[in-house]
Amino acid sequence: MAKDKKLVEAITSMDTDFAQWYTDVVKKAELIAYSSVKGCMIIKPAGYAIWENIQKELDRRFKETGVENVYMPMFIPESLLQKEKDHVEGFAPEVAWVTHGGLSELQERLCVRPTSETLFCDFYKDDIQSYRDLPKLYNQWCSVVRWEKETRPFLRSREFLWQEGHTAHATAEEAEERTVQMLNVYADFCEEVLAMPVIRGRKTEKEKFAGAEATYTIEALMHDGKALQSGTSHNFGDGFAKAFGIQYTDKNNKLQYVHQTSWGMTTRLIGAIIMVHGDDSGLVLPPRIAPVQTMVIPIQQHKEGVLEKAQEVKEGLVQAGIAAGLDDSDKSPGWKFSEQEMRGIPVRVELGPKDIEAGKCVLVRRDTREKTECAIEDVAQTVKELLETIQREMFERAKAHRDSHISDAHDYAEFKRAVENKPGFIRGMWCGDQACEDKIKEETTATSRCMPFEDQEHIADTCVCCGKPAHKLVYWGKAY
Amino acid sequence: MAKDKKLVEAITSMDTDFAQWYTDVVKKAELIAYSSVKGCMIIKPAGYAIWENIQKELDRRFKETGVENVYMPMFIPESLLQKEKDHVEGFAPEVAWVTHGGLSELQERLCVRPTSETLFCDFYKDDIQSYRDLPKLYNQWCSVVRWEKETRPFLRSREFLWQEGHTAHATAEEAEERTVQMLNVYADFCEEVLAMPVIRGRKTEKEKFAGAEATYTIEALMHDGKALQSGTSHNFGDGFAKAFGIQYTDKNNKLQYVHQTSWGMTTRLIGAIIMVHGDDSGLVLPPRIAPVQTMVIPIQQHKEGVLEKAQEVKEGLVQAGIAAGLDDSDKSPGWKFSEQEMRGIPVRVELGPKDIEAGKCVLVRRDTREKTECAIEDVAQTVKELLETIQREMFERAKAHRDSHISDAHDYAEFKRAVENKPGFIRGMWCGDQACEDKIKEETTATSRCMPFEDQEHIADTCVCCGKPAHKLVYWGKAY
Repeated sequence: MAKDKKLVEAITSMDTDFAQWYTDVVKKAELIAYSSVKGCMIIKPAGYAIWENIQKELDRRFKETGVENVYMPMFIPESLLQKEKDHVEGFAPEVAWVTHGGLSELQERLCVRPTSETLFCDFYKDDIQSYRDLPKLYNQWCSVVRWEKETRPFLRSREFLWQEGHTAHATAEEAEERTVQMLNVYADFCEEVLAMPVIRGRKTEKEKFAGAEATYTIEALMHDGKALQSGTSHNFGDGFAKAFGIQYTDKNNKLQYVHQTSWGMTTRLIGAIIMVHGDDSGLVLPPRIAPVQTMVIPIQQHKEGVLEKAQEVKEGLVQAGIAAGLDDSDKSPGWKFSEQEMRGIPVRVELGPKDIEAGKCVLVRRDTREKTECAIEDVAQTVKELLETIQREMFERAKAHRDSHISDAHDYAEFKRAVENKPGFIRGMWCGDQACEDKIKEETTATSRCMPFEDQEHIADTCVCCGKPAHKLVYWGKAY
Repeated sequence: MAKDKKLVEAITSMDTDFAQWYTDVVKKAELIAYSSVKGCMIIKPAGYAIWENIQKELDRRFKETGVENVYMPMFIPESLLQKEKDHVEGFAPEVAWVTHGGLSELQERLCVRPTSETLFCDFYKDDIQSYRDLPKLYNQWCSVVRWEKETRPFLRSREFLWQEGHTAHATAEEAEERTVQMLNVYADFCEEVLAMPVIRGRKTEKEKFAGAEATYTIEALMHDGKALQSGTSHNFGDGFAKAFGIQYTDKNNKLQYVHQTSWGMTTRLIGAIIMVHGDDSGLVLPPRIAPVQTMVIPIQQHKEGVLEKAQEVKEGLVQAGIAAGLDDSDKSPGWKFSEQEMRGIPVRVELGPKDIEAGKCVLVRRDTREKTECAIEDVAQTVKELLETIQREMFERAKAHRDSHISDAHDYAEFKRAVENKPGFIRGMWCGDQACEDKIKEETTATSRCMPFEDQEHIADTCVCCGKPAHKLVYWGKAY
């Protein structure tokens, strides 16, 4: 049993080498496999099941706000990509180009979508005629391609899965409202389902999306103190509408340009879950996103009645609405424990002949490893409550970790010390000049993460970089 | 009201021009829009919602048989595509090639997946080591690209959505069993959910999938008497395993090749639904696949209490588990009726001031246009039963139509007369020689659809084409 455990747990400690720990977890928890296509990953069942749960939960939340799903082509003609100047500059350098279809060369190159603003705009310009056609609240689930040079599973890959919402509105106010609304859907999802606290804010001009008037973001803090941009929502104003000629006739029979938004979340979230909650035994999944929430593991399962009882317990859990599994494989219990831990299953139920005789079983939490006993007849109710407790405490722990990794810097010396010595977010005032952002990034590798909506405190009068008067509080940090 | 109706119903009659009728329905029911990418379509909300229901229902049925979802890259390196000889011959002429990533030319061209056998094989060769790793029962939902010359919405497009299952087994028997099992999942789904009767059978060598040992198919008959291949399931034997070196160690510690299958269904099914059930007023959706099953349409909705009652009725329907909508827009009732008919919503509930006074409402079936009255307090229960009746009767009507369009041919003269005069399936014996299939296709445009599993009657002693001895009954027909 000891030997079994060692085999499964042979992953690098996160304190020794966080990047290697991440890679080990991703592979050993069987979330992905590398493919023979450089920079593209294979998402294995354990990884894809997490994505399916993310999809299900987000899709439900989108639809509650009136969003409908559609599907756009995966190709964008080069001329279409070029219609909005900032947008093409942002994306052209990193797209994949299709030049041949079948045996012939194409008359015009097609890029594989890196994002679909241009396709939606091209569609909206015909689909929207009157104020009666507005708003359009469309979303699609698909994969996109960005020809990245360096890639890491989930965090940055040449192809990744995502959703992209694209909306069109009659007024600037409505577009702004939708931009914020979707950011809040994202933030609530992260906090309520992924147990991951986020900071909501606005990106600086330097960091905003190519072609957007404003980009809002949610920023989460990983266990190593680095930030991860976890979802963004963009207000395009009427910039794309003017570039593509998307106009509608208003109630007074006057032609008006629409106002647009887009917003996206990706498989990157799986990377976030790993790096916020994981530990040296592997993945730790919040119960609300875990494909398997509870694993029943029989002890001495060859003994009469053990497997039957374990099966009965599992079925009771399933009937109570818990995603429960039963590991009745011929592996040793120790091996099964390690696998359940590596895969991040929130609770395991241990059940052996002695337990059965005493009418009880042992519950072990994945997150704290805390063991409790419970009467077999109460197991469904107890596990149900335990899952809620785990969900809540995982969020609280992640939030405590995040909050203890925020420091304030009042001048550049303090800022640099913080970057070097205290991984995490640094709050510092900013004058609004991009030169300061550039300098900070070059000298410290920290970037401006966002100008937070909440807690816009005036912690100093001057810019943390140049010392000139400053009125904006910015969260800075090293980021994935 | 009459004018309204005419506007919406201005579609070509199916008897006048079936192809134009199809295109009209697809556009007027707002299932798709054409995109600026030639041969690729935009699936609009009404179309995508049908696909979501297809996905939900199929995915559930797959998972019940132990299938797990994964995601493979969308690109296939040219060298990988070439590993299985028949497969590359079948697909290479119709793939799209990526030659540039960002600003640089790729060292090796990548094709956009036309299907993913090669990617799964490349993955399985590492992922499968021991008999303990078998079977692998993987599926993915994605889009694929085939560079077709002529395209039609849903039926044939350069990019389409589908699922592709790929399994690996220890034995030939198990692979064969899985091939048949998935064909049956497809057939049951078509008959139970889409109300579309299908013929299950085996493809001839000429018509089988590139690289397969055997291809099984389900064939449905469209309203115009043409066949539509609606789902296929392939047994690869160990052909791909040998080409890719996918071996496992068996219980006796001997190296063995795996046996593989693949199976797929596509957005083509939406075309099938249109062409099996549609009529001159538009789409007719079977209740079990309809995104909106019942539309409540208030009459004289400006009168006091009408909208409130309509809302109440709608909520009662939703509470009873019916996907119900309420059309409270400012259009006329006649316009709303036409829209509901065009969109194929199975039942509408009409409710006006007089109805409310009398405590009743009017139910109108989309399929038969039959009107019945029902007490408002019974509406949920009555609609529920009505939807079941519609589902059953739609299947029965489609089956009666299909069965009345099957003719037997005993010799070539009879065969040619049938092709010309009686659209539908033609049953005819076949000697097994591909020359006869080629001749029939060239001279009549009919193709061999399948060698049916059931009703393998011996309707003649000789081949319907060459007159030589024949033992195989084949279903022939013109096809989409």
